Amino acid sequence: MDSHGKTHQREHEDDVISPKPVALSKYSNRVELKTLLERSDGGARLAGKRVVIGGWVKSSRAVKKDSPPPPPPQPSVTVPPPPSTKSNISCTEIIQSKMNIFRKLFDVLSGGGKTTYPIFDKPEITGQKATSPPEYTIYFLISDGSSVSSLQVVVDSAMSTIPATQLMSLGTCIVAEGVLRHPLAASAKHVIELEAEKLLHVGTVDPEKYPLSKKQLPLHLLRDFSHFRPRTTTVGSVTRVHSALTLASHTFFQSNGFQYVQVPVITTTGFGEMFRVTTTLDREEKKHDGLSIETVKAAIKEKTRLIDHLKRSDSNREAVAAAVHDLKKTTDLAAQLEKKQKPQKLDFFGCDTYLTVSGRFHLESYASALGKVYTFGPRFTADKIDNARHLAEMWNVEAEIAFSELDDAMDCADDFFKFLCRYLLENRHEDMKFISKRVDKTVTTRLEATASNSLLRFSYTEAISLLQKATTRTFETKPKWGVALKEEHLSYLTDEICKGSVMIIHSYPKEVKPFYIRLNEDKKTVAAFDLVVPKVGVVISGSQNEERFEILDARIKELGSISREKYEWYLDLRRHGTVKHSGMSLRMEHMLLFATGLPDIKDAVPFPRSWGKANN
Amino acid sequence: MDSHGKTHQREHEDDVISPKPVALSKYSNRVELKTLLERSDGGARLAGKRVVIGGWVKSSRAVKKDSPPPPPPQPSVTVPPPPSTKSNISCTEIIQSKMNIFRKLFDVLSGGGKTTYPIFDKPEITGQKATSPPEYTIYFLISDGSSVSSLQVVVDSAMSTIPATQLMSLGTCIVAEGVLRHPLAASAKHVIELEAEKLLHVGTVDPEKYPLSKKQLPLHLLRDFSHFRPRTTTVGSVTRVHSALTLASHTFFQSNGFQYVQVPVITTTGFGEMFRVTTTLDREEKKHDGLSIETVKAAIKEKTRLIDHLKRSDSNREAVAAAVHDLKKTTDLAAQLEKKQKPQKLDFFGCDTYLTVSGRFHLESYASALGKVYTFGPRFTADKIDNARHLAEMWNVEAEIAFSELDDAMDCADDFFKFLCRYLLENRHEDMKFISKRVDKTVTTRLEATASNSLLRFSYTEAISLLQKATTRTFETKPKWGVALKEEHLSYLTDEICKGSVMIIHSYPKEVKPFYIRLNEDKKTVAAFDLVVPKVGVVISGSQNEERFEILDARIKELGSISREKYEWYLDLRRHGTVKHSGMSLRMEHMLLFATGLPDIKDAVPFPRSWGKANN
Repeated sequence: MDSHGKTHQREHEDDVISPKPVALSKYSNRVELKTLLERSDGGARLAGKRVVIGGWVKSSRAVKKDSPPPPPPQPSVTVPPPPSTKSNISCTEIIQSKMNIFRKLFDVLSGGGKTTYPIFDKPEITGQKATSPPEYTIYFLISDGSSVSSLQVVVDSAMSTIPATQLMSLGTCIVAEGVLRHPLAASAKHVIELEAEKLLHVGTVDPEKYPLSKKQLPLHLLRDFSHFRPRTTTVGSVTRVHSALTLASHTFFQSNGFQYVQVPVITTTGFGEMFRVTTTLDREEKKHDGLSIETVKAAIKEKTRLIDHLKRSDSNREAVAAAVHDLKKTTDLAAQLEKKQKPQKLDFFGCDTYLTVSGRFHLESYASALGKVYTFGPRFTADKIDNARHLAEMWNVEAEIAFSELDDAMDCADDFFKFLCRYLLENRHEDMKFISKRVDKTVTTRLEATASNSLLRFSYTEAISLLQKATTRTFETKPKWGVALKEEHLSYLTDEICKGSVMIIHSYPKEVKPFYIRLNEDKKTVAAFDLVVPKVGVVISGSQNEERFEILDARIKELGSISREKYEWYLDLRRHGTVKHSGMSLRMEHMLLFATGLPDIKDAVPFPRSWGKANN
Repeated sequence: MDSHGKTHQREHEDDVISPKPVALSKYSNRVELKTLLERSDGGARLAGKRVVIGGWVKSSRAVKKDSPPPPPPQPSVTVPPPPSTKSNISCTEIIQSKMNIFRKLFDVLSGGGKTTYPIFDKPEITGQKATSPPEYTIYFLISDGSSVSSLQVVVDSAMSTIPATQLMSLGTCIVAEGVLRHPLAASAKHVIELEAEKLLHVGTVDPEKYPLSKKQLPLHLLRDFSHFRPRTTTVGSVTRVHSALTLASHTFFQSNGFQYVQVPVITTTGFGEMFRVTTTLDREEKKHDGLSIETVKAAIKEKTRLIDHLKRSDSNREAVAAAVHDLKKTTDLAAQLEKKQKPQKLDFFGCDTYLTVSGRFHLESYASALGKVYTFGPRFTADKIDNARHLAEMWNVEAEIAFSELDDAMDCADDFFKFLCRYLLENRHEDMKFISKRVDKTVTTRLEATASNSLLRFSYTEAISLLQKATTRTFETKPKWGVALKEEHLSYLTDEICKGSVMIIHSYPKEVKPFYIRLNEDKKTVAAFDLVVPKVGVVISGSQNEERFEILDARIKELGSISREKYEWYLDLRRHGTVKHSGMSLRMEHMLLFATGLPDIKDAVPFPRSWGKANN
């Protein structure tokens, strides 16, 4: 890559070089493939342009130079059929079984030298060949992650000292300079390809250790390789959808007058199973005066054994007394060490701290000053659940609105949800098309239906009544007024009864929702809602939180389990200048499941954290 | 607030009601003050419009109905002068000394009943007065946090059963319906005010416990009240600036073709002082078979004392043996408890996990697949530092670019930094004007200069040479080639020599930068840069990270202290399809200090977390 930085400058400085390259990628000296392939003409009018491209090998095949060109692969990620002539090789074959034979063959053919790691920074220097091996034309499909599509790059094996087999391995990184041209083969379905003139960089792969394969592996097999799986077209697309949802969230709230507020991840408040944040654990493992607590414990054991032995062997009283005295000193030291290591006394913040489960408490403080606020950040629960819908670390978009009631938050959630759907349809067309093809055929129509239709709304009481009428399904938890709606209930409502997303609104029994939600006039129900989508469950939860000091205070007292002291600051917001307010929380990972149709949350998030699993 | 939701509907449904209200705030049934006050005519043409507004009292004064109207306060946050006539009262006076006298007086005057909390949801029901007290006209300045400006709201004390003193307290929340009018007093500087006809909601304040005051308190006095301080105009403005910087960051990267990647907060990799994430601590405190480790330790002590006593009192051998045997059982139990509680064995993820110090490692994985990626999230360090530039939890914007070298990341950082400055000038005009007035006079000119001029760039070696020539300053750490640039050096470079922001580029001694940064040809320096701004220090750090497997591997081995095993996944990125890449990291809180001129980071972040301090 050293050379192309110098010979090919940014477009606007580039009048001396002809033919003129198309727009370079900003902040990197190459053209993004999206720029070439996602044009309305598919890139046709770019033929003749000189470009530098970079990316990773998706598939490849080599053809002996005197052979006819193979049927060209389509500029997509589908596996091309294996070549018919024996003189042609494909990456697929190499990876699947014949690796060693082909590698040996090619090592011999191409001079056999062991290549260094990474190679080919300066081809003009390293390119001394002992003998002249037969030359191959290699057809690569290269992807750079800027879009779903891949570019066919045609490389002459003589351009590199690296054995062709190694170049051709799936996942090899290639930076090539060349000229765009229409494909030579008349049967080609792709519009444009690159005829490489120079390989500027090659980052090789060790195919025996590389976990990805040309075969479309089921996503769950890639979970242990979270650092490689974005190189698959599916995870690439899902990431671009995730990225779009993120910007769309900020755009929606800021264009509606909300201010972003950075709420803390480390907190002293919260409920349920939480993670502790501490600096005491590592200290415990450290030595004290050269003695660890483990050593001292071992000494106590040893010394007790000694006393036992002294007793049994009829030793004199002094020896026993001395041993007992010595033991006492050791147990004292143990106690002392124990005291010094008492975590609460030593911890970084001087108090118990946790990873936040929700940002809404902190947001309420800012809503009671700025009116409309939102945040977007990681939320944590330490529940020992390992299923397709739950992670220990998940990101929420949360909003809080002062001078508002439940209906306002419901309208906001409704608009936000539809905005996200519309945004994807408008801004991630290619990815949604690919995901529809590869993951879930109904995904685009689902987004379209959601964006253009009104969401069905009914109350908890109506939901229970609908569930009670269910004849085609029996539930583990019998639906009756007062029970929390479980996954089985929600999925029946969305998948079977409504065949779409629904909002369950207004009046939940107070026992099934958190203490801070506003008590309705009936004193039995609270002002909450849930937006539930098919196959996924709750995507947005919202509520009008209690603004009346006495009621909130009483409800905190009712829950003996939570430490009232920790909520004094939250109660303060009701003591001074209280206001009616409502808010909501969108679970980003669940939105992503809805938008992509992926069945498991572990495949939707780049680096999932779940019970018993944190990789990197 | 119950009533106005019904009588005043969203504007587009509102043709029946006359006069027509101006645009309501979306998702809350009131008009945001920004809509009224930040118009080009200052709101003049809105006179006669009926609106509902809500907000918190910034200042207030009451005038007896038969008195002439007081000189009207300006629609800003400056403290109005105390009224000259004794029959008029101002909020300032009440809060500062005469609270009890005035409260009593007003309680008597207004019927004296103790009001409930919160009050005035239904004025028509609660408005039965025993006697008719003298009536006051109360002039409020109300702010709703949507902008710097406040609205004057004129209220007749007879509208409410709440004592006027209580209504007038700083921080009281008021929702009022009324008609906009030009101010009556000819001397008024404000363009528009609201003549209230109904108070729809009042959220009172207990002034003796409320920490804010009409006096402009120094920000550091408010740090213990992080949940209230956004109600000050300064913190409100800083929050809106912070919000704008957040959206601007996403906009910059996405419009330049970067994909957002959600990197994890909980991680197994990292370096330096880190926070542990665990679920074992709470478990340790729990009992085991009814016995806590502390109880067992106490028993060991007691039993040892008993043996001692038995020995001294010449008891028979069997008694001593029995006691020793018993002690042994107890120490065994202690060992067993210890083992059961061994944190590593029990912890949630089955391994040691930490709060992330940087997202760049994880980003590199996605850059090696999608090309250009960025993220924005919380980063943590457990260093025991408590100063004006450091927090334990800070948010970074991080970016990583494949197919790029150091210069590309430098250009990206340069553009990003300028984009943020320009964005604030264009989108936060009123707030920047206020911050210039209240916090730092130079702030707007500084942003303008940064946005329009080229950043000065020089190398580490040049920086050292400039520092060595310094005659006006002696440094604690003498500047010579090889030392890390400390705060004293950076501030001298930016504040004294360059009088502006600088980029220190290209070649840092490898010893002063992390192990993963790319080694330059000279084998002595690494490819890094820092963007340093006056008074704040480093705002952006960037580097080209090592893409060569052998060199990275060797550098990890050099650092005996870090566990190589943890970095296997990171090394994998070089084993398979490696590529040159560079990236950067912007410290959002430091950008905010630069943009606002605030001297202390604890005042710039909503809920700061620092050594020994986590409030809520």
